[in-house]
This record gives sequence, C-alpha cells and structure tokens, in this order.
Amino acid sequence: MSASSSQVDLSHHLSSETRLRQANPMKAIWRLARRKADMISLANGDPHFSLYPIRKVEFEVASISDDIDDPVASWRIGGSSAPSQTFASTTNSSPAKLPLRTALQYSAGAGLPDAQRAVTELTDHYHSPPDHVATLTLGNGDGVAKIFRLLGEPGDHFLADEFSFSSLTNAPLSHGIKWVPVRIDGGGLIPEELESILENWDEQSQGKRPHVLYTVPCGQNPTGSTLSLERRQRIYELAQRFDLIIVEDDPYYYLQYDRLDLDDAMSDKLFQLIPSFLSMDVDGRVMRVDSFSKIMAPGMRLGWITSNPLFHEALVHLTDSSTHHPHAFGQIFITEMLSSPTGWQIAGFDKWVRSLRLEYQRRRDVFMRAFLRDVASTGFASAEFPEAGMFVWIQVDVERHPRFRRIPSIQDPAAAAVVRADAENVNDLCAPSPSTVARTNVTQLMEELFERCLDGGLVVMPASIFVTPADDKVRDVQDPVEDRLNFLRATFAGPEETMEAGLRILAKVLKEFFSSEAK
Amino acid sequence: MSASSSQVDLSHHLSSETRLRQANPMKAIWRLARRKADMISLANGDPHFSLYPIRKVEFEVASISDDIDDPVASWRIGGSSAPSQTFASTTNSSPAKLPLRTALQYSAGAGLPDAQRAVTELTDHYHSPPDHVATLTLGNGDGVAKIFRLLGEPGDHFLADEFSFSSLTNAPLSHGIKWVPVRIDGGGLIPEELESILENWDEQSQGKRPHVLYTVPCGQNPTGSTLSLERRQRIYELAQRFDLIIVEDDPYYYLQYDRLDLDDAMSDKLFQLIPSFLSMDVDGRVMRVDSFSKIMAPGMRLGWITSNPLFHEALVHLTDSSTHHPHAFGQIFITEMLSSPTGWQIAGFDKWVRSLRLEYQRRRDVFMRAFLRDVASTGFASAEFPEAGMFVWIQVDVERHPRFRRIPSIQDPAAAAVVRADAENVNDLCAPSPSTVARTNVTQLMEELFERCLDGGLVVMPASIFVTPADDKVRDVQDPVEDRLNFLRATFAGPEETMEAGLRILAKVLKEFFSSEAK
Repeated sequence: MSASSSQVDLSHHLSSETRLRQANPMKAIWRLARRKADMISLANGDPHFSLYPIRKVEFEVASISDDIDDPVASWRIGGSSAPSQTFASTTNSSPAKLPLRTALQYSAGAGLPDAQRAVTELTDHYHSPPDHVATLTLGNGDGVAKIFRLLGEPGDHFLADEFSFSSLTNAPLSHGIKWVPVRIDGGGLIPEELESILENWDEQSQGKRPHVLYTVPCGQNPTGSTLSLERRQRIYELAQRFDLIIVEDDPYYYLQYDRLDLDDAMSDKLFQLIPSFLSMDVDGRVMRVDSFSKIMAPGMRLGWITSNPLFHEALVHLTDSSTHHPHAFGQIFITEMLSSPTGWQIAGFDKWVRSLRLEYQRRRDVFMRAFLRDVASTGFASAEFPEAGMFVWIQVDVERHPRFRRIPSIQDPAAAAVVRADAENVNDLCAPSPSTVARTNVTQLMEELFERCLDGGLVVMPASIFVTPADDKVRDVQDPVEDRLNFLRATFAGPEETMEAGLRILAKVLKEFFSSEAK
Repeated sequence: MSASSSQVDLSHHLSSETRLRQANPMKAIWRLARRKADMISLANGDPHFSLYPIRKVEFEVASISDDIDDPVASWRIGGSSAPSQTFASTTNSSPAKLPLRTALQYSAGAGLPDAQRAVTELTDHYHSPPDHVATLTLGNGDGVAKIFRLLGEPGDHFLADEFSFSSLTNAPLSHGIKWVPVRIDGGGLIPEELESILENWDEQSQGKRPHVLYTVPCGQNPTGSTLSLERRQRIYELAQRFDLIIVEDDPYYYLQYDRLDLDDAMSDKLFQLIPSFLSMDVDGRVMRVDSFSKIMAPGMRLGWITSNPLFHEALVHLTDSSTHHPHAFGQIFITEMLSSPTGWQIAGFDKWVRSLRLEYQRRRDVFMRAFLRDVASTGFASAEFPEAGMFVWIQVDVERHPRFRRIPSIQDPAAAAVVRADAENVNDLCAPSPSTVARTNVTQLMEELFERCLDGGLVVMPASIFVTPADDKVRDVQDPVEDRLNFLRATFAGPEETMEAGLRILAKVLKEFFSSEAK
C-alpha cells in the first residue's frame, strides 16, 4: 500500500446507522493503559492463557515444495500418500508466527495484526492498491452483508447485476435497500446500461440516485461472465462521474482461465490475472471483498475487505458491534500459511492458486467438451466458455419449443393472467410483482424443464432463482426479466463423471421436452 | 429437549426487519434435489473436497483421564509436560465425528448438524429446557447483537441492568434501540425496580412498553452479582405478566463459586449450579446465550443461542443473511471435544469446568484476601464476595473525601455547571445528557481517582464505562446514575502476583487520594 492519500471525501456514502455507531468505549481505557511501560492491569476479564485447555493446533496441508510442479494435481491424485507439510501454533510457540496465547485471546475487529498483515501483503502482491486497508471478515457473505449495512440507508437504491447470487442480494431487502438491476451479457455488466440508468435517473419520482454498485467481476455468479479490462475502466469512470461506491465481490479472482480450449492457450507462466477494480481505485471508492472459500475451503469462513481507511474504520466499529473479531483457528491458519517459515508463504500460495486454476480450467474444458458433444448438438441449448469461476450459464432456445407463446399485449390483463396462472412452484420464489407481466410463457416453460430435469435425476439451478429483485419504481416493464429466464446454471466444480453423467441427462431431457406436444 | 409444545405465541416480538427477511431461496432447490435417491447435481458451486489443501486438523488438549482429579491444576502447574490428549479431523476420517470433507464444505446457518447436536446435548445436560432449539453463534457478542436485531424495532425500549457491558449495550443504539436501565444491587437486577418501571410505564408519553430484558444473571459484568433463584423466579413471573422476552447472556454460568471463603464451603461434588432462566422457561420467552470464551478461550468465537423454535428459525434466516454459518475449525473442535470417543465428551467437559470453577474460586479468594488486607483496611473502599464470574465491584466511599460536595439544588443551573465543568476526560464517554445533572461531584472525584490509579501504574475499569445509556424519556433525574459512579471494576482472572501488586497500588492511591486537600 502506498502512503499517498489522494483519496476523495466519501463519507457521505455512510448510512446514518453507521454514522451513529460509536467506537467501543473500552478502547479508550486500553489506550490509557499504555501510559507507562510496566502498568499492572486488573481491567479486562480475559481468561489467563494458562487456563486455555488447548496446547497445540496443527494443520497438515499440501506440499508446495520445489520438486512438485503441479501441487494440486499431486495432491488430488496422490491421495493420502501425496506429500504434505505441517504447520502449528502452540502455547508459547516457535516457530509459529501466532502463538496460541495471543491468537486465543480477545482481539481486534480488524483481525489480529499478524493476520491483517498477511492478507494485506497478499492484496499488495496481486493488486497494489493506493492507500487501502484490510479488515478481516467471516467470508464474503459476511463481508458483503456488512458493506450493505455500512452504506445502506433504508430506501436507498443499490445497483447490481440483473442476475446475481440471491442469498446475498436478498439480505438487505429486509432493511430497506431496493435493487436496481443492470443488464448483463456474456461479458458481464454492460457499461452502457449502467450509464443509461444513472443518466436517466429521476430523483423526483425514483428517489435518491443509486450510490452503490454491487458486482462480481470474475466468473460472475450465476452467468460465469468476466468483465474485460475495457469494461472495468468504463465502469470505474462511471463510478467517478456518478459518485458510486463499487463493491467488488471477487471470490473467483484466482480461478481465471485461458480464453478458450485451444492448443495455443497461454503457458501458465505467462498467464496474467485481469486487473481488479481495486487496482485502479485512485479515489478510494472500491470496496474489494476477498475470500478463501473457493481456493482453500468454504468452511474456512475467513476473508477480508480492502477499502479506504475511513470505510475500514467504520467496518471495524460495525464488527466491534456485531461479530466482534474473527476466530483464532482461521487466523492461525492463514497467518501461518502465508507468513510462517513452515507455511507456504506468498510464493507458495501463488503456486497453489496457479495450479488450482489449471485444475478448474481442465474441469471447465471437460464440461464444455461434453456440453458441445451432448447438449449443444441437440440444437436446443448453447453456452459460452466461461473465462473464470465455476459456472456455465446454459441458454435454452425456448422459442423453438412447440408451446412457446408471445402475449399479444400487456394491456390485456386476461392474457397476462393466463401466463401467470400456474406459476405456483419454484419460480414463485422470485415471483414478479403484479405490476409487471411477462410477454411470453418462458417462465412456465422453464419451470416445466426444470421439473423434467429433476424427474430425470438432474439438479441444475433455474435462472429464476438468481433474479435480482427489482424495486417497482425501476422495473423494466417493456422488456421484463421474466422473458429472459431461459437459462440454467450448471457448475463444473465437481468430478468429471458427475459432469458427464449430468450433461447426458440434460441432453435427453431437452430432446424429450422440445418434442413434447402442447398440453 | 422435551417434545411438548406448550409455548405461547411470541411472534409479535419479532422486528419488522425480521418479519420481512426471506429464507435463502437456494434452500428450496436443495430440498427438491432430494427427490430421488441418486440425483446428479450440477447445482452448487461447492469446491470439491479433493481440492481442499487441508488433510488434517489436530488439537492437543488437556487430559481429563480418570487418574487426574483436578485437570485444571494439573494442566496449569504441569506446563508443557502435563498430560494431554489429542483429537483430529481428517479428510475421510475415522474416528472423527466430523470428517474434513463435511466440515469444510458450505453448511447451515444453525451450524453443522453434529455441532448443533453437541451443544444441544450440553444444554439438555445442564438446563433440561422444555422445547427449545440451539442455533450456533460466533460467540456471545455475535449472539446478543443478532438477538437485538431479531427483536428490536427502531424506537423500541429494551430493559437492561443499569451497569452493563457497554460494547454490547452500545451496539443497538445505532439502529434505534433505546435503553431503560434497571437498578441493580449486590444481588443483581432488583425485581421490584423492574416491576415498578413496567407498572408505571406510560405508553402515551414514553412509547411502546419495553418488551425485551437483557441481563447477565451470573457474575454480572461489571458488578459481579449473581441473581438468586428467588429473584430469577420473580423476574420470570414479571416477564410473563408484562410479556417480556428475557435475553439471558450467561458466559460465566460455569464459573459459580461457593458463597464465601469459608472452611465449611460445599464440597465440589455437592456443588450445584444455580438454575438458569432457560430451565424455567415454560413459555419459550427466554433466549439463552452461551459461550466457550470464558471456559475454553475467547478466540474460539463460537457459542450458541437456545430459544423457542420460531425464534430459532428467524435466527437462522438472519444468519443466512449475514454471517452465513459458523467456521469449520471451531465446529470441529467442539464436536470432537464433546462427542467423539477421543474427545472429552460431556462427562469430561463437566470435570473440566468443575475444576476450572475451583481454580477461579481460588483466584477470587486470593483477590479478596488481598483486598480485605490492603484495600478495605484503609476504610475508603469495600466489596462483596462475588459468587460467580471474574469481577469484583469495588465501592469507593467517596463521601468521605474532603472535596466531596452535594449540589444544593438541581434547580440551580450555575451549581450544576460547576460540577460538570471539567468533565472532559474518560467519564465523558458516557457523559450524561444535558437534560439531567448530577447532585454531587462523584463523577469528577472518581475521574480523578482513576487518573491517579493510572499515574500509579494500575489500570482498573471506571464505573462510568459501564453505564447503560438511558433514553432521555426514562432517565432517573431524581437519583441520577452519575451520583452512583463510585465503583471500580477489577478482575481476578489474572495471575496472583498481578492481583497482589495491583491491589497494593490501589491501597496506596486511595490513601493519597483521600488525604488530598481541596484544590
């Protein structure tokens, strides 16, 4: 992190709840307690470390030693005999960076200094952001939810990809945040759509202009799309022009792939990760959310937010008032892994994630080959090669279905009623408000297809699950999202046999579905 | 837990935010995915367990084997050669209860089923509550903050001990909760004071009657007081009569002590833990908050809430929308410790906490002997023997100070101004609103004493830090809390030498302070 502080004043983005939140009053005492060198403290109810019943926490992890070229392949194929290395934290503790007596005590909302330093060095290595600070989180779900609280005033409009990860976008609805979905294509969020929304925003009728954009820039969930550098630059310019905060939720950053399954794919040594929004953030208006879930394991429940120092401080106050501080065991793990002589350190971490990206790229290619062979060949579905992440967004050519219908006019409530009549199942989870109606029966046909997949023994995710719930005032009634639900999300994160078998079922179901007669 | 469901309908206690919050829409899909036995899933972006770089997590903990009578003493005194036992979770994993492949995957907001079962069995063992369910938390700070969100409508009044742990009571102020402090004495919250507040509540002028009571029943922080069984029963009756939810925050439950430092103290075998509010909760109106911080280590950041099934479900939705689920490493630790053949199991846990209570009781007695000898003997301070927890609430006989003053009348704004004039330091952290004024200069004298302690090399906590911030509408202007700040909180959690040395400083500072002349 550079020491420069050219950032603009962004304090007006903080919610009133955030501005009302007070620092932990105990902290004033802790500062005073450092008045002299040899103070005696009877102040804190801290259990003495000699009474912790834990003497050692030890982790056995994959070896990244020099004689292993592809550590993920060695680990996966080698099974229980694959070479490993071990790091541990003990009570007093050399060589551990974080002795248990420190790690297991109460600590700071931002994380233990050693753990905070470890993720800061990682961020510096990959993003070199100007003047940013790291705050540890309990994974990206926690991080994103905290950011929504930090910035969200009840009644505020936030922007998001039109299809998004609904367990995150649903969360702030209950505290009054309203979503403005932005159209998305195979290249991710479309800058022109974003610009059009912001330019045409009418504060008189729609309320305060949106001031937060939530987006997943790499391997977007669910569409698998990745924003190009050009789109990122364009979106950042729009953020500057319209004073947006960009929440860059980037769990798939390390899982970026060569653009196509071609023989001339770049060699791994030359492969470049795409620059993040954070890396270009001269204003301090990017809050980047990082996670270990996809590159280590979801159960880690540890990640971090990188933000400007003001937002960092507000996040610490929020953490002090909610989750208090991250768990010791996870902080030990990442600190020892990233910083200790017995851990991987950053070079080893980089070796692991580069090897991991090749493994997932291989899975992507297995998936896409099987998809092209078995599914696309039916002519009823297609998909783009994802350049990052874990998902393929399968477009179903639903207009070719014998029972596909267009509604003559949305002014005809009776026709609309017919279209919605049997929507009583899965798709109701994101049921459109009665104020808009679909102009086709895509929703019903996709629901039927989903049911047929289940009957055939295959679980995929219907697009309806991922619709960012639009506020009534901004809903697109001319081109409603309900007519664009002809997608299924499938993952290539699993084993090859699963993908192959799953795609065979999908092909069979599609063929039967498209040959089905009108009821 | 009994299967009986005699609980009353308490749904009206949930905040509108809670009622608006939706279940995670993904869960509907996961349910559908169980339609057939051998479903193939391409649904979730779950990293495959063969790609987790972690093969083993191992914990070395104190031995509780049969030949060890007092495991805490053996552990503490034995140092690195004290007998230990080891449990671990590995990828596939016998004998572990929780193999890594399960623990490290995404899981449920309530916690992994095995971990949830482990704490449920613990609750059943100690409290046998009727029809309650456990929800895992990230420690009591997280648990209490979640409950305040769950039940708190902006503008709601909540009741709390008049002195309380301010990093928890400050938290909900920013989302509009207003506190109504209830007077407290050496026996904890005074039921008659609670009754009087509720009986005399005027909804016309004061708003909706308080519907939540937050209290720490054992070893209350900061006063060290413990509610007697009689007070608990009386308070529960009031909760029934006035329809209160009781938030029982009980981190010190296992640290209950013999009532006095007497030779005829009960033998440990006969020692009975006092019944919790949860144990008497026929209505389902108690939300009990349990923690491993004080009995294992604070860095665990794992605890649980026990509540009625409706509140449990709402807590799970809140967790799914915020912290998502507890961390794997902590869940592995408690599950293996409490349930695995290689762990302590409940009998071993009980042995550890009984031994731990004796250790802290010994520390309490060391503290109190030194206090009586060095501090109480000065005649300037006194304290009651705490029956639980980690704290002694030291009352300073401030009226004996040569500069102690009573303000002639609160109608005299000039006199009031004098009293508040130099209150620019620590006590300002809980500065009274200008609408009330102190009738004495206790605040200033205690601030001076606190400063003198710091100058003497001793850190204790001033009472002012713990004042539950009262809403203006309920502030006691006749007998303001500012005149009752003549207390210091000191802990006996630390080593003997620290206590002895600290109390010697306190005695010296008190003597000098009380002999100081008027400025």
